Amino acid sequence: MIEVAVLGATGTVGQRFIQLLENHAWFRVAEVAASERSVGRTYAEACRWLLPTPMPASVASLTVQPLDADFRSPVILSALPSEVAQSLEPALAQRGHLVSSNTSAHRMASDVPLLLPELNADHVRLVEVQRRQRGYSGALVTMSNCTTVPVAVALAPLLPFGVRQVQVVSLQAISGSGYPGVPSLDIFDNILPYIGGEEEKVEREPLKILGTLSDDQIVPLPATFSASCNRVPVLDGHTVVVSVKFESPPPLEAIREAWQAFEPHALARGLPSLPDPVLIYTDGLDRPQPRLDRDNGRGMATTVGRLRPCNVLDVKFVALSHNTVRGAAGGAILNAELLIAQGYGEALGLPSLQQSAT
Amino acid sequence: MIEVAVLGATGTVGQRFIQLLENHAWFRVAEVAASERSVGRTYAEACRWLLPTPMPASVASLTVQPLDADFRSPVILSALPSEVAQSLEPALAQRGHLVSSNTSAHRMASDVPLLLPELNADHVRLVEVQRRQRGYSGALVTMSNCTTVPVAVALAPLLPFGVRQVQVVSLQAISGSGYPGVPSLDIFDNILPYIGGEEEKVEREPLKILGTLSDDQIVPLPATFSASCNRVPVLDGHTVVVSVKFESPPPLEAIREAWQAFEPHALARGLPSLPDPVLIYTDGLDRPQPRLDRDNGRGMATTVGRLRPCNVLDVKFVALSHNTVRGAAGGAILNAELLIAQGYGEALGLPSLQQSAT
Amino acid sequence: MIEVAVLGATGTVGQRFIQLLENHAWFRVAEVAASERSVGRTYAEACRWLLPTPMPASVASLTVQPLDADFRSPVILSALPSEVAQSLEPALAQRGHLVSSNTSAHRMASDVPLLLPELNADHVRLVEVQRRQRGYSGALVTMSNCTTVPVAVALAPLLPFGVRQVQVVSLQAISGSGYPGVPSLDIFDNILPYIGGEEEKVEREPLKILGTLSDDQIVPLPATFSASCNRVPVLDGHTVVVSVKFESPPPLEAIREAWQAFEPHALARGLPSLPDPVLIYTDGLDRPQPRLDRDNGRGMATTVGRLRPCNVLDVKFVALSHNTVRGAAGGAILNAELLIAQGYGEALGLPSLQQSAT
Amino acid sequence: MIEVAVLGATGTVGQRFIQLLENHAWFRVAEVAASERSVGRTYAEACRWLLPTPMPASVASLTVQPLDADFRSPVILSALPSEVAQSLEPALAQRGHLVSSNTSAHRMASDVPLLLPELNADHVRLVEVQRRQRGYSGALVTMSNCTTVPVAVALAPLLPFGVRQVQVVSLQAISGSGYPGVPSLDIFDNILPYIGGEEEKVEREPLKILGTLSDDQIVPLPATFSASCNRVPVLDGHTVVVSVKFESPPPLEAIREAWQAFEPHALARGLPSLPDPVLIYTDGLDRPQPRLDRDNGRGMATTVGRLRPCNVLDVKFVALSHNTVRGAAGGAILNAELLIAQGYGEALGLPSLQQSAT
Repeated sequence: MIEVAVLGATGTVGQRFIQLLENHAWFRVAEVAASERSVGRTYAEACRWLLPTPMPASVASLTVQPLDADFRSPVILSALPSEVAQSLEPALAQRGHLVSSNTSAHRMASDVPLLLPELNADHVRLVEVQRRQRGYSGALVTMSNCTTVPVAVALAPLLPFGVRQVQVVSLQAISGSGYPGVPSLDIFDNILPYIGGEEEKVEREPLKILGTLSDDQIVPLPATFSASCNRVPVLDGHTVVVSVKFESPPPLEAIREAWQAFEPHALARGLPSLPDPVLIYTDGLDRPQPRLDRDNGRGMATTVGRLRPCNVLDVKFVALSHNTVRGAAGGAILNAELLIAQGYGEALGLPSLQQSAT
Repeated sequence: MIEVAVLGATGTVGQRFIQLLENHAWFRVAEVAASERSVGRTYAEACRWLLPTPMPASVASLTVQPLDADFRSPVILSALPSEVAQSLEPALAQRGHLVSSNTSAHRMASDVPLLLPELNADHVRLVEVQRRQRGYSGALVTMSNCTTVPVAVALAPLLPFGVRQVQVVSLQAISGSGYPGVPSLDIFDNILPYIGGEEEKVEREPLKILGTLSDDQIVPLPATFSASCNRVPVLDGHTVVVSVKFESPPPLEAIREAWQAFEPHALARGLPSLPDPVLIYTDGLDRPQPRLDRDNGRGMATTVGRLRPCNVLDVKFVALSHNTVRGAAGGAILNAELLIAQGYGEALGLPSLQQSAT
Repeated sequence: MIEVAVLGATGTVGQRFIQLLENHAWFRVAEVAASERSVGRTYAEACRWLLPTPMPASVASLTVQPLDADFRSPVILSALPSEVAQSLEPALAQRGHLVSSNTSAHRMASDVPLLLPELNADHVRLVEVQRRQRGYSGALVTMSNCTTVPVAVALAPLLPFGVRQVQVVSLQAISGSGYPGVPSLDIFDNILPYIGGEEEKVEREPLKILGTLSDDQIVPLPATFSASCNRVPVLDGHTVVVSVKFESPPPLEAIREAWQAFEPHALARGLPSLPDPVLIYTDGLDRPQPRLDRDNGRGMATTVGRLRPCNVLDVKFVALSHNTVRGAAGGAILNAELLIAQGYGEALGLPSLQQSAT
Repeated sequence: MIEVAVLGATGTVGQRFIQLLENHAWFRVAEVAASERSVGRTYAEACRWLLPTPMPASVASLTVQPLDADFRSPVILSALPSEVAQSLEPALAQRGHLVSSNTSAHRMASDVPLLLPELNADHVRLVEVQRRQRGYSGALVTMSNCTTVPVAVALAPLLPFGVRQVQVVSLQAISGSGYPGVPSLDIFDNILPYIGGEEEKVEREPLKILGTLSDDQIVPLPATFSASCNRVPVLDGHTVVVSVKFESPPPLEAIREAWQAFEPHALARGLPSLPDPVLIYTDGLDRPQPRLDRDNGRGMATTVGRLRPCNVLDVKFVALSHNTVRGAAGGAILNAELLIAQGYGEALGLPSLQQSAT
């Protein structure tokens, strides 16, 4: 088993890391770190556990370390606040750790992969650029914003048709804003039609994720995105209502087939956290729905439905992913798996595991 | 006081009619009618009252009449199911009643006004066509779909810029589907990304409402609408996220000014249910919100905010109206007021009231 | 008009004070004060207004003062945190202000009236003790805990039967914990079966409120209360499920009659905020309900129903009051009205108003 | 594998049966039956599946049979409406089926076991009485009301202290009323303080469950229960607030120890659906909570906490069980397991399975 340190371990994403790693095939939580006021207490004492499954006993008794500890774990999963991640994550990669981050701080850096492995596992090659340019002995890879996930997964199979314009309206769950996060008085019987910084991320990140790696650089998707982000009174699961304009508008049936035939990127196959299928197309009249579809593929699949023509662009549909599983902790674990599988941990004495897994 | 009969009086829109008419300046609820199983009971017995204000005592004691009763009230407010309204509303107009309907059955008929008086009060002139063609001694006017309201009100001030394409994503409250309506197990911790028939209405109705009356016909707005309608766990208040493409894209500031300067149609001024202002522009970062803004203008105003550029069309914004007040009962009352004010009840011995009101 | 200063003006109870005073017959908000970070800003800037009615324009432009300002208003309404109120409220009473507090700090002091005027308006006489013992030229009166209200109001008419034992289980609304208050992740799809300090208050306060004033002291009600307090996902309105054992158990019909015949204390009659009736008895099978009954009597009435025998004690029933209106701001305003009506402001040049009001 | 027919298969409890049996150690769903309008369609077509895990594929393709079909499955799990169960369940037991019912129709019959096997597995011996008196070749056993479960499980370990009086106030989830069940307009931002027939069940059933089998009869627990039942806006999980008076009031510590030491009835050990532990005592200040504790023991455990003295009776606490798992489908499956383990299926050629399981 490969030892993992979870940074920001007491927050909502940190808790998901620990829940999802409980019986992980490759990883074991060996260290937890959090901010000042948790340091020195056991994880059980420091954490207000908010998940419906019990806190794993092996983690409950770990002592919370400071964020600047000298971690022994080769793999680091980071759910740090952006301002802390800014300098800490590069320092850890420099010191030799494989850092898989859920934070926005480094997502758009040109030599940092922004990975949804089922779509763009080959972008992990940017780690080599990173090692050359920054002298890292470790690596730093990033997970996208949670709302970007259903957008990017639903669009990836449609790239052959020439995606050119995309309108996204999101209906985002409250767990996306952490704990204490959204006050109940704000969201009860209400919609919040604004989430700070979110629209910019959803407009920018898909271009990199769906771009192509060429000459050690990502050539972004030549498309334009417009996003309107809303908070809704739903616990988990981000729903996106999407309209798309194509260069060569395909018939609806071709889109449906592209979704149903979609295969994850070859380099991602066999990774323990990859769901099968990655994308579930449903023709249920009123699906996807967050409460019924967020747990598809153990929270790692994206569900897409309501495909129909759009009077203004070409087609419209609805997509949905679990925001703290596929859209955060589960995604960053998948990215860490990819690093291992692709041999980026070999210098740390870690096996290149994917071959044995398939 | 002018006597009014409320048809479909026990449903959620029927209850709003009765609540809003409690201290109305011109109207008094004299008759209530509902389906078979309520007939013969008092309104208090027949109705599961769901509003937080007490049932008006004067209505509580009325005996519920059958829908085919011979109503004595000159004005009829109809919240009938569409299939019942199909034949009943025309028959009542034929018999001389002024019928203000909240039903979809006759909205798109070429000689039936689809009225949001603050925007298109002049369309009431179609009643004259109706009287000529159908031989009505009364009149039949209709109220739009509840989701159409915030879309049409927000766009009306922008027509001078040449509205050409409109994308609408709605987040609609549960009260919009009546009682018992949406089962709690369907909407609890959930989004329903489908509302039967709704998208077609939202794509079609604004063209008529925002069209122009010419030669006894409505020339529809030459624009294209695309709508995606969603049910969200909110009690009252429909929120719409809108993107617009213009023939001559104005600067944001011009749009803001158009909203702030917007005056209701001259024929609508002085109507008792008209709010002042009709449209409230807010620059609150996270407004409008249904729980905080739905009651603006006693539920009759539309609140608009979050104006910003759209990368795909030209601009985007968020608008919100109360769906059972402005979007249903309050709207149909306003339409009935317009009929009276414009003198369409004079043959019934009713005064042409607006002059005295202004 | 009597000028009023609102302390803790930006919080949820402070906002209710300002909303309820907008068109008050006697009072006008002249000063607002809040904690450090709001001082010097206008009320509109400092306050995240959370009520569905607009912020009153006359208050929006007031500059927020520090809590230790030298207030000119003779009447002070306090929604201060308990630790701040501890020393500040007595100091203000000492300086001559009539302080009506919604805080728990001084409720149980032997010379401080704990007032629900409809039940115990005569307890206001303790102000005289207070003035003698503490040398106040002003006065300090307190409002009970919000959950105490429906319990005390429902029991007061039953005192003649000898209330001896009372079991209370509360289902309390989220607005009771202020803003930001309960995180949405804690209360969404959930019940919190614990509210710090609440059960003790509900067990203790009714004894004082329902006690009798004798020889300048309150003789507490000789009864025993047991309370279990729960937070539920409801916006406003505290529901209490109550079982009672009497010295002389009356027939249910006698209890019903006692409730229906209940008259407010003579000294409270004519106070502007007193609802009529004070207690609404309903025989609706499934009432009272918070969303439908919390606004009864403009939020100042208590609604009681579901009266039936209890197998363990004698009878059980359900009662409900609006927690931030009757249970907080509205209650403290009523207490201030009582002070004025009883002439405790005469030294400040304030009229003894009740006579003119009746 | 033992074949099972699920009656009332399309309802919320029927769906739970099918979900819980997906990978059951002993049982396999072979037949599904439902009311007229579902008959002849596949289960996938007939059922609006409301659970977040996918509908098991093996059941999706089964054709829905009528309720009066000639079932071949030896074991019948019934989630029938009470009025249908009244005559149908006895007829099926007569014909040789082992009928495990979740319905209230036969719970209180003197020769029908009302089983919570962890508490009273020996009551299954009433099947022998039933066979003698009614001539059944099969058997009919029943599951309690869902709200009875947390009450009975929490009290069972305390019987040695002489439970004499019990006050129960329930906060019940919406899934307890089936589908479509509670209209969202009734429960949104609201509490319903009445559930038809529920209080009587909660007052009566624990007496039988916690009674003792003697001379082929159940001697009921000599105690008195009073219940107040409320519906709250929670999806799953019934919370009960309980106060108890004992013959010999024990110290709190003795109660805590009784809970922690509690062992399920010997005859229930080894049953596949029995959780370990059956009862979870928590000293978390604000636990149990439905969203966090309902899934304890895969939804089959009862969680108890907030133990403290009661001023009126002796002690009070909060208990919680999953209402559609332990309180309905899971409970009835456990009862069916007990029938098999105790050899009541041997005449049907079914093995007495428990020995091999332990």
